[in-house]
Formats: sequence, C-alpha cells, structure tokens
Amino acid sequence: MTVKDLFGGMEGGGTKFVCAVGTGPDDLREEIRFATTAPDETLAQAVAFFKKHNVAAIGLAPFGPLDLDPASPRYGSITATPKPGWSEANILAAFRRAFDIPLAFDLDVNAAAIGEYIFIPANRGLDSLVYFTIGTGIGAGVIANGKIVHGLTHPEAGHIRLPHDLAKDPFPGNCPFHGDCFEGLANGPALEARWGQSGDSLPDNHPAWELEAGYIAAALANVILTISPRRIILGGGIMERRFLFPLIRAQVKELLNSYVASPVFAGELDDFIVPPALGKRSGVLGALAMAKILAKE
Amino acid sequence: MTVKDLFGGMEGGGTKFVCAVGTGPDDLREEIRFATTAPDETLAQAVAFFKKHNVAAIGLAPFGPLDLDPASPRYGSITATPKPGWSEANILAAFRRAFDIPLAFDLDVNAAAIGEYIFIPANRGLDSLVYFTIGTGIGAGVIANGKIVHGLTHPEAGHIRLPHDLAKDPFPGNCPFHGDCFEGLANGPALEARWGQSGDSLPDNHPAWELEAGYIAAALANVILTISPRRIILGGGIMERRFLFPLIRAQVKELLNSYVASPVFAGELDDFIVPPALGKRSGVLGALAMAKILAKE
Repeated sequence: MTVKDLFGGMEGGGTKFVCAVGTGPDDLREEIRFATTAPDETLAQAVAFFKKHNVAAIGLAPFGPLDLDPASPRYGSITATPKPGWSEANILAAFRRAFDIPLAFDLDVNAAAIGEYIFIPANRGLDSLVYFTIGTGIGAGVIANGKIVHGLTHPEAGHIRLPHDLAKDPFPGNCPFHGDCFEGLANGPALEARWGQSGDSLPDNHPAWELEAGYIAAALANVILTISPRRIILGGGIMERRFLFPLIRAQVKELLNSYVASPVFAGELDDFIVPPALGKRSGVLGALAMAKILAKE
Repeated sequence: MTVKDLFGGMEGGGTKFVCAVGTGPDDLREEIRFATTAPDETLAQAVAFFKKHNVAAIGLAPFGPLDLDPASPRYGSITATPKPGWSEANILAAFRRAFDIPLAFDLDVNAAAIGEYIFIPANRGLDSLVYFTIGTGIGAGVIANGKIVHGLTHPEAGHIRLPHDLAKDPFPGNCPFHGDCFEGLANGPALEARWGQSGDSLPDNHPAWELEAGYIAAALANVILTISPRRIILGGGIMERRFLFPLIRAQVKELLNSYVASPVFAGELDDFIVPPALGKRSGVLGALAMAKILAKE
C-alpha cells in the first residue's frame, strides 16, 4: 500500500446505498447515494461507481442478517430478510466477479462501529464500544478487545427481550420473529403503529418519547451489564431527535442504580452515550476503513 | 519462565476460598479449600499456602464487584459488597505486601471463563465464549476476540433485566439493587424464597425448574443476540442439576425462533450450551492460567 492508495466503501441499506471513495473522513473524493431497488440493478450501480476509480480495496457493508462464515457456501450473502428479492443475494460474489482486488465484507452496523472506532481519535483510545442504529430497524455493532465482535454469526442486539409492562404500553410489538423484542417495541414502524402517526411528526413533548427512551435505556443497561463497553454511540433516524439523549442517559442511570462501580456513572453520561461523531457517514466510512484494514493485512 | 515453573491460582468466593499450585489441570501439585471468614484471616491463610511453594506468579480471582482499573487508587479491591467486612478489602495489596512476583488480578467468574478457554482444547479453538455461574449469585465472564472482556469495569450479566410475567411468577425478585433482574429472579435465594424450601431439596419434577430454566434461557438468548458467542458454559451450584440443560437449550431455541442463521441452531445445542469441562475447578485453574499468561508477558 502506498500513501496515495484510495479505498472504496459501500454501505448498503434497505432503503438506500451509499458508496464513497477516499482515504478517510477528511479525504472523501467522491460519494454517491441511490435507492435500494432489485439486487442486480442496485449492485450494478455500486460496481459502476467503483469502476470509475482506481481503488486498492473495497469494504462492503450491506444490511443483514448476513452469512459471515468464510467456510459457508453462502458466505457473502444476505440470509433471511423480509425485503423482497434480497434473501440469498450474494453481495460479495457480485463484487468478486467485477473486481480482482481485496474485498472486505461485514454487516452495515458493524461497519458503523468500525468507522467510529478507527477514524475518531477519542474512540480509538478505547478498546471497546457499541454502535447502535435505531430507526426502521435496530441493530448494534460491538467492538471488544480492539476488534469488531463476530461469533456464531454477528450480534443482533436489536432483538433482545426487555421488560414490557402491558398495562403501561399495550402495543404487542411488531417483530415477525419475536413480537415484543427491543426492535419490535422501539423501531420506527412500532412508533407509528402505536401512536397512529410517523415518529417524524410526533412533537418533542409527546409521551411517545419518554416510552421510547425507556426501551432504549433498558437495552443499553443490559448491554452495559453484559460487556461493560467504554462508550455507546447511538445513530439511526430516531436518534436524530437529539432531546432523546438526556432522557436515555437519565433512565440508564436509574436502571443501573449505582451498581456499576465506575466513576463514569457518577456523571451525566454525556461522554458515554453519544451521537455518532461521523454523523450519517459512520457506515460508509467504516466500510472504507474495513478496506484499508484488509489491504494492510 | 522455564518448563519447571509452578504457578499459583486463588479463587476467592463468598463462601470458600480455593488455592492451588501447579501448571494446569493435569498437573495440580496441591490444592486447599477453606471457609471465607474475615478478610485479614482469610487472606493470611491464602498467603501462607502460597509461601510454602516456589511459584513464579499467582493469579488472584476473588468475588466482586472489583476495581479492575490499574489507574484507580482502589485497584485490586472488592468495591460495594453486602458481605460483611469485605467492602473495600484490597486483595491485591495484601498479596503485594507478601510476594515480590507477578500477580494477576481479575473477577472469579472471569477466571472461570479463562480457565475453560485456556485449558480446554475444544474451547481454545473458538475466539469467543461466555461462562455463567448460576448459584447464590449470578455472573458471567466473556471471552471475545480471544481475550477476556473488560471495559468501564467488568461485565455483570447477572443483573440484566428480563421479561417478568407477574401473573405467572408473582415473586418480586430479591436483588437489593434491581429487584427482579436475572439474579433477583433466578439465584439460589430466589428459588428458596419463592418455593419455601432450598433449591437442593426441590425434586426434579417440581415446577420451580421449568420457571428457572426459562429465566436462564431468556438471559442466554439476550447474551447470544448481544455478542454471538461460539459457546456458553453454565457452572455454579444450580447447574449441578444437569436435567436443567435440555430444558434451557429447548427454551433458548424457542426464544430465538430461528432468527440466528447459524447451523448450530438447527441442532439441539448440546455442544453450544454446556457444563464446565473443568468441573468445579474452572475458577481456580483460570486463576492459575492468569498467572501463567502474566508471567509470559
């Protein structure tokens, strides 16, 4: 790798794809966004974009769930998704046919965690963090011991079960797999189904938000107790309502009830539960970081 | 370090201490067990045991919560524990006064995870596992990316919140910090308080066990979704009732509902949710492994 090498990053969401070329957040040469349509058409657009540039490696970070097991015949594909046409779409194979360069492959939210970890010096000094996306879907990427966490598959922390007080919130949850898991209670469609209007149109003082912050706080408290991360980053469409941050921080403190003996919990958690430092580019920049890391290996 | 070097391991539980000297599970030269009394007396017994042996390093693994931050003035101590006399007891400092050799320090359940990971070849091939102890207390040690997970403090996965159906189980939970968290609903004292007799005396066909297995399965499902470990080891007094394993495995599968796309979940989870391969010695052998690792650094 030489200093001049350029890298590509692709964040493939269920609604839109973002592709970028450059070396990092301060050196993005070109970026495009386009709607997620059928797999062939969408992937062809991404391939055409990267073909225009002389990139040393590309990081691919589509929505999941993904088959991340290099020993699996389906490695590189999206597995079971309700999104029409995309089940079994093999993203990595499509790129392998088009490019003879190193290709990194991981989940979109893992890329976002990697982007925040690699490109933000204040995060890089930590050895652990969690990046949650909270929007139409909910998911989390986990960094522990300085690397993204994979295992049997990848984390799917949007689907953990939380206490659900049916007297306070009779909404049964909308997850097709788990009903009232975290995502089923707190994603964008749940907000809309519960209150009869989209989250975007709910005013800041609507009771929806205290409930929403409560579910997010309950999930965060469980994640804190399970892996004790040094920072939690909350991205995704719902978290653009920034007034949610102090509500969530206060409820996390209440739930942990001084049990976690870290000086961090004596404060207001302003540096512990934070918005993404890379804004909406955590994912695409993380994909680019994946390409850089792979090229160096 | 030479081939002949011996190492010491101390697992300091709330009820008893176990100290051993050797090089691993097949080469334990001496082991003692004694009751946990006042800190001075108990630690003096442990120190006296290791003084008899020429050990190259000692691993210390007491019950927690612990201050594991080397930059903290309280590093090496137990922090807030309800156990009389032990709050603020500095275990590491007591050993530093007695020994001029490398001393490793971590939580008892982290040591158990390390012991199972380092000494069991079938685990060593994985890069992640979780060790839960389920008994008077509940806790978990997490290995991710090949190393024990620390962060702000250490994981305390016994205290995650789970769905609690008060109609099915009106017991309010006994955790002084969180009421009906996992530990508050499923530890040994909760079993006894709910059913009016000790867990040991409850027959295998008592309805207590289906409920107990349900809480354990709910916690495991959340941990699986949060970090996707390659194996979960269940130790501690309650897990000596081995008929709980199939009950737990079945409920974990039901809770995940085919969402986690790993071939492992097509099976019965017999190799995924397992008893400790080191039996009751996971902790003390893990402490010994901590000493070996530190001496090699």
